[in-house]
Amino acid sequence: MIKFHTVGGYSEVGKNMSILEIDDDAIILDMGLFLPPIVELENKKGEVYTERSLRTIEALPDDKKISKDLRKKIRAILIGHAHLDHVGAVPYMEYNYKAPIVGTPFTMEFLKAIAEDGNFVLKNQTRTVHPNSSITIKGKKDIKVEFINMTHSTLQTAMVVIHTPKGAIVYANDFKFDNYPIIGKKPNYQRLKELGKQGVLALIVDSIYANVEKKTPSEKIARGLLEDVLFTTDNQKSGLFVTTFSSHIARLKSIVDCGVKLNRKIVFVGRSLHRYVSVASKVNLAPFTNKIKLVRYRNQVERALKKVSRDPTEWMVVCTGHQGEPGSILDRLTRGVLPYKFSSKDHVVFSSAVIPSVWSIANRQKLEKKMKAAGTRIFTDVHVSGHCMREDLRDLVGMLQPQHIIPAHAGIDKTTAMAELASELGYKLGKTVHLMQNGNKLSLG
Amino acid sequence: MIKFHTVGGYSEVGKNMSILEIDDDAIILDMGLFLPPIVELENKKGEVYTERSLRTIEALPDDKKISKDLRKKIRAILIGHAHLDHVGAVPYMEYNYKAPIVGTPFTMEFLKAIAEDGNFVLKNQTRTVHPNSSITIKGKKDIKVEFINMTHSTLQTAMVVIHTPKGAIVYANDFKFDNYPIIGKKPNYQRLKELGKQGVLALIVDSIYANVEKKTPSEKIARGLLEDVLFTTDNQKSGLFVTTFSSHIARLKSIVDCGVKLNRKIVFVGRSLHRYVSVASKVNLAPFTNKIKLVRYRNQVERALKKVSRDPTEWMVVCTGHQGEPGSILDRLTRGVLPYKFSSKDHVVFSSAVIPSVWSIANRQKLEKKMKAAGTRIFTDVHVSGHCMREDLRDLVGMLQPQHIIPAHAGIDKTTAMAELASELGYKLGKTVHLMQNGNKLSLG
Amino acid sequence: MIKFHTVGGYSEVGKNMSILEIDDDAIILDMGLFLPPIVELENKKGEVYTERSLRTIEALPDDKKISKDLRKKIRAILIGHAHLDHVGAVPYMEYNYKAPIVGTPFTMEFLKAIAEDGNFVLKNQTRTVHPNSSITIKGKKDIKVEFINMTHSTLQTAMVVIHTPKGAIVYANDFKFDNYPIIGKKPNYQRLKELGKQGVLALIVDSIYANVEKKTPSEKIARGLLEDVLFTTDNQKSGLFVTTFSSHIARLKSIVDCGVKLNRKIVFVGRSLHRYVSVASKVNLAPFTNKIKLVRYRNQVERALKKVSRDPTEWMVVCTGHQGEPGSILDRLTRGVLPYKFSSKDHVVFSSAVIPSVWSIANRQKLEKKMKAAGTRIFTDVHVSGHCMREDLRDLVGMLQPQHIIPAHAGIDKTTAMAELASELGYKLGKTVHLMQNGNKLSLG
Amino acid sequence: MIKFHTVGGYSEVGKNMSILEIDDDAIILDMGLFLPPIVELENKKGEVYTERSLRTIEALPDDKKISKDLRKKIRAILIGHAHLDHVGAVPYMEYNYKAPIVGTPFTMEFLKAIAEDGNFVLKNQTRTVHPNSSITIKGKKDIKVEFINMTHSTLQTAMVVIHTPKGAIVYANDFKFDNYPIIGKKPNYQRLKELGKQGVLALIVDSIYANVEKKTPSEKIARGLLEDVLFTTDNQKSGLFVTTFSSHIARLKSIVDCGVKLNRKIVFVGRSLHRYVSVASKVNLAPFTNKIKLVRYRNQVERALKKVSRDPTEWMVVCTGHQGEPGSILDRLTRGVLPYKFSSKDHVVFSSAVIPSVWSIANRQKLEKKMKAAGTRIFTDVHVSGHCMREDLRDLVGMLQPQHIIPAHAGIDKTTAMAELASELGYKLGKTVHLMQNGNKLSLG
Repeated sequence: MIKFHTVGGYSEVGKNMSILEIDDDAIILDMGLFLPPIVELENKKGEVYTERSLRTIEALPDDKKISKDLRKKIRAILIGHAHLDHVGAVPYMEYNYKAPIVGTPFTMEFLKAIAEDGNFVLKNQTRTVHPNSSITIKGKKDIKVEFINMTHSTLQTAMVVIHTPKGAIVYANDFKFDNYPIIGKKPNYQRLKELGKQGVLALIVDSIYANVEKKTPSEKIARGLLEDVLFTTDNQKSGLFVTTFSSHIARLKSIVDCGVKLNRKIVFVGRSLHRYVSVASKVNLAPFTNKIKLVRYRNQVERALKKVSRDPTEWMVVCTGHQGEPGSILDRLTRGVLPYKFSSKDHVVFSSAVIPSVWSIANRQKLEKKMKAAGTRIFTDVHVSGHCMREDLRDLVGMLQPQHIIPAHAGIDKTTAMAELASELGYKLGKTVHLMQNGNKLSLG
Repeated sequence: MIKFHTVGGYSEVGKNMSILEIDDDAIILDMGLFLPPIVELENKKGEVYTERSLRTIEALPDDKKISKDLRKKIRAILIGHAHLDHVGAVPYMEYNYKAPIVGTPFTMEFLKAIAEDGNFVLKNQTRTVHPNSSITIKGKKDIKVEFINMTHSTLQTAMVVIHTPKGAIVYANDFKFDNYPIIGKKPNYQRLKELGKQGVLALIVDSIYANVEKKTPSEKIARGLLEDVLFTTDNQKSGLFVTTFSSHIARLKSIVDCGVKLNRKIVFVGRSLHRYVSVASKVNLAPFTNKIKLVRYRNQVERALKKVSRDPTEWMVVCTGHQGEPGSILDRLTRGVLPYKFSSKDHVVFSSAVIPSVWSIANRQKLEKKMKAAGTRIFTDVHVSGHCMREDLRDLVGMLQPQHIIPAHAGIDKTTAMAELASELGYKLGKTVHLMQNGNKLSLG
Repeated sequence: MIKFHTVGGYSEVGKNMSILEIDDDAIILDMGLFLPPIVELENKKGEVYTERSLRTIEALPDDKKISKDLRKKIRAILIGHAHLDHVGAVPYMEYNYKAPIVGTPFTMEFLKAIAEDGNFVLKNQTRTVHPNSSITIKGKKDIKVEFINMTHSTLQTAMVVIHTPKGAIVYANDFKFDNYPIIGKKPNYQRLKELGKQGVLALIVDSIYANVEKKTPSEKIARGLLEDVLFTTDNQKSGLFVTTFSSHIARLKSIVDCGVKLNRKIVFVGRSLHRYVSVASKVNLAPFTNKIKLVRYRNQVERALKKVSRDPTEWMVVCTGHQGEPGSILDRLTRGVLPYKFSSKDHVVFSSAVIPSVWSIANRQKLEKKMKAAGTRIFTDVHVSGHCMREDLRDLVGMLQPQHIIPAHAGIDKTTAMAELASELGYKLGKTVHLMQNGNKLSLG
Repeated sequence: MIKFHTVGGYSEVGKNMSILEIDDDAIILDMGLFLPPIVELENKKGEVYTERSLRTIEALPDDKKISKDLRKKIRAILIGHAHLDHVGAVPYMEYNYKAPIVGTPFTMEFLKAIAEDGNFVLKNQTRTVHPNSSITIKGKKDIKVEFINMTHSTLQTAMVVIHTPKGAIVYANDFKFDNYPIIGKKPNYQRLKELGKQGVLALIVDSIYANVEKKTPSEKIARGLLEDVLFTTDNQKSGLFVTTFSSHIARLKSIVDCGVKLNRKIVFVGRSLHRYVSVASKVNLAPFTNKIKLVRYRNQVERALKKVSRDPTEWMVVCTGHQGEPGSILDRLTRGVLPYKFSSKDHVVFSSAVIPSVWSIANRQKLEKKMKAAGTRIFTDVHVSGHCMREDLRDLVGMLQPQHIIPAHAGIDKTTAMAELASELGYKLGKTVHLMQNGNKLSLG
């Protein structure tokens, strides 16, 4: 008996959590946060969260509805990658389960870092699996779990494969197919094709951009866009600030490489940058730390920016705030509470997209408005996505040839597009492709 | 006395034509076609045009309103680059003037080719100027004209500078700032800055994307996107068709380079591809002709496609039809009148954007629908624009520091954005930045 | 055993056709055309269709896949209302079945008229049922079928209810809830509530605007908008042309009422207007025929327009062409082939929306462009929809309380919104609300 | 010498203020607030404003740049109507001028009310002019000023006409042409046509919707939409809340009329509703006060809502909060700080549009999300605009035949559309139609 239970991430983009039940054992896949209500909250108050406060604003996956029986069967919590919408809820919720937390080294280091920052002590042990290797989960029957190397917008992202007696279950949430990932290896296409031949029972798949009829551009394109903006515009006499997703270590490498070419000293400023870069450094995946200065604490930040303000043309400042988050470095810079004042001489490069939540849009618009009022020059969307689009999905389905497809990572407004693609490819809605919502279950044999 | 007269291209995107009057002499800048009504016409009938039929559908700039006096003063017809909306009207209209037609070698060769194709005998002589060099136009007073090397989506595009006693007039219609142009040199920033120091009276400037708050990505990005689509998707067992703007020789080079890497034989099919590649070849700017087979005539086309159909995986077909034009190769392929049948094994790559006219949108949608019905896989928008966006414009204004700015290459629905940028930079609407429409004139001193 | 089979209209907007199987009997619900490919075809050629040509362009529901067994069980073809996407395929396909065709008087008269126009002789007999009454279909077991009065954008639209041993099946395709319908009665809410109490097994429901979070405005609003445009703008010295959906008899009544108030003589011009008004007249539902002149044939049309051209201010011309259809009166007027020439003195009122197919958009844009070139004043979207929106759907579900919901009248890109509404109301995707595509079947007990 | 100076409202939608200079005299037209930054501010703090704080966030028209000479010439401050973006800055700024404040009775009463609420004592006297009458402004030369009756979304809106020796200056900011205004008279078309014959030197005109190619629907349409929502949906067992712009007295009358028909008791709740209704009452233009209960103070509000909560089906609550404003009644209801709890039994009708500022969008989205979480049923956009669209503008220009047109009430992103319309009608950009920004001046003879 194999059953798939959706807990979170099937009615919204965020708080991903699913459970795979195999006879007398079960496995949790991801345990993430829903960020938009947290952003809203942050606009008002400081940033002290508790499980209770996060549950109230529905920022945690709703695992209260899981039956006692099922809860008892949980043997592992598998985490696919180090983004908050996949791992961020672990510190708040893991104590309810008795099961090791498993992920790649970067992911597990990141988990430890956020736990520590929040003064959590994890009740369960963590176990690491290297990309392209396997692990056995102990249960009534042992379960083999494989972490296949994948490309995405953070490091050591894995497609998680659970081998069941009825075939493999592939949890592809999130990924893109990128042959030029800047840091790390290409996706392991070879293994995907082998799995396809051996038999895949079900594919749970990132469908957030299934409606975009393209192949997602590679990270090398983002690098090229950065080069265009940094090397082709007139910035010799300008202050230079670049911001991106702190988790995007490959992007940070490209930014640093550009800064070096521009002969500028490089300083990284901001708490979440510090956290992700430190974590990457621990697992030896931040091949640029010798070229940068990394500052985190308030007085360090102030000293660094004071230095920059003496001769801005000597520096490139990489900082937080690409979503206009209250309390981020860019927010504080525009509010005038840091010892650097934006002027018409400064360039700010956003190597990111605006997250399509109304609070992020509002925060970002406010930030840009202040910069424009100061005459500061802005470059936006110097970015490519880390999520697969329709043509990547078509290739994935072609390689895996799964019996069942379960679109994930959004509500049915978006997963519908994956269902359409599947039916183009011969799948039948309700039979072999399944539109699910949070709190559903599906029998897979 | 310096006056600027708008003839075409200030109330629509297309049929660019302006006149600069300097005391007793005058110069025509561009003489292009308005393509959307031609596309509409082509949907109905074949393709025989006359001056009269083109005037009826308003596809030619309306030079009938030019006064006799001004007409007599015309001393030269300067063409900025080899796109039909800048040069395509010359064969139909040049006989009304007595003045040499001047442009870069590629542009002039292209002009001769279209004249020949249409059985026109040009009444006026053509003169070539190399990029980054000058020429003197004879008149009551001699006028020095300079063609500055610029990057755009075709070869040997120039910013045309007319030196007047009151300062330089810079005609920047069209351009982008691209430091990685694949074929040809970078823009001549040095010369632009010098002009800025010497004094620029007026800048007439491509404003079609002035509303896009970005820097236009370089051609290297388009190359990277092609590599993503061609090297990262599963196409070893597929037929491979690529289509792009026939005038875009740099793009064609990237496509050929990819084809070579894929170990495929490459054939170029279609009349306009043949025309542009032949012209580029004549001026030694098609550094890939030895790697391709170039076919044009019906029986050649049929023979070539028959060969491809025997083993599609050996070939890459580069062909016309990116806008779904009736009569193009892709159109005829989907209509089943050529000896190759699209199937679910074929990939078609559109290295182009859809032109935003309702007829192009309809043609293209029809084309794609037929392909999809056959199960053919489609990759669209594998492309970057050749037009400057807001941040390029900001840099251009910064370098040239012109006294007056005249937004061009669109109606005021779009040129307004350039006026806004100018007013950000200190220009005054109606005083130093001028929103014009077809048939206006402006006194510049 | 009750099974529901989708034939057409579940993967596109158009060619509606479903089959309800009840043990040894079965009933067809609607048999309509898919119009966009027909519009495309009309742009090229004249208008002679055959079953074969319509099947080629996929304009007919694909009933070839219906099993022989099921085909033999068909006992009736029920038609909900007189729109071509619900009834237009009957003349081409009914001969394949041996079953009476059943609908309201207006619908059946319309069917006869289109059959006659196309020189079809219907093989099956037609039977009429008055709104708010029932009929018994003979089969292995008799089946009671009820036609409940509903409001929509044509006359005598019915919600069709099939009474089965397991509960009622309600076919609500198409409708709106309008208490001010201008012609005809309000929806029969009373009967819907009774059905809800007795037990509804399944609801098949028009979901095209389920994503619009509104209640559809009533027909009285369209009347008010017409009054605004006709009575508040300065048109005493203008020619006045109004166009709308020919099937929309209530709208035509409002237009005529306005024309009378303006003291203008009113002439209806165009073939499809003639057809629908004649049909409405036969069933005594065109309470304005004494106030208008109705012309159809070429020489009548020309004579009428010649008269209008003598003093346009005396007339209101109601004519075909609201979608810019080639061959319609407005198309021919703008092409200059009729004895009336549009000028800057004329007003043209479009009491319609543009159908969102690329060919309709292109045709309409072309039409408007020509009118604008002549300086003619245009009023568009003087219209409200005939389809229910989300809040009507919520009320319908509230009244009927069906066990199962099957969203219809569009592909899953749109029916998804109805599924979302249903899940808000407690239904479960895949269990009690079913996203279907053409060619699916669903067991209902 | 006649000069027109733009102060505010020509680079944004809001803070309208202009100055007309006629030889040795000058007149101010409007003095309004820019609301979006105030909304942003309100999201953070309470609502205590000072001139200084409002200047800091650029919510006041920037009159600091007005020359001393011009300032001395000011003889009157004319206010067109009682909206905050036209009159709201008066209390903060009038003391800088020595000139009477002139407007219609409703407008002047409203001014007094907001001054009083803010504890301002106006330094200048106020003078009232009835719609369709005139007044003489004393200056070096006397100036005749006329207030023509116009329709808009508040009462006693006027087109202000200043008679100069060179012709009339018509300030049409804001208006719509509505023959069915519910309260008040139709626009005085007769007088507009007379002015056109006598000679209009310049028209300053509301262009915010000049890009919408329609005629604005009348207020009767909004009434019809309300009737659809209130009489056609199933609400007998529901609580009923309606919200709209507090200044929109005609809309409030329609709402009350509907409430009476539904046999519900009606209570108006909220500070700004109280203010506007009281003001309307003072000038005898609130013909519904006997049918409602009007509450303002906290304890009154609480008592009223407690009563409602006892039997919601007996009441209709008209309240503030249509933009989700923090502190409004709807905001407080959803935050649970008032003695009424929204449930799935309640209906909330928004007879308003969302103001297109990111803060209003965010506030409103937040409000709706909370309502939806409670299962409350929402009806949005039950509304028509109070601003003229393109076809009204065409009629206005036709009647007035002004020599010059100055588009107003938005930045050039929107006023451009009015310039386009004007050039369709024969005006020349820069000659007779003038795109202006804040702080410009234009010589009119």
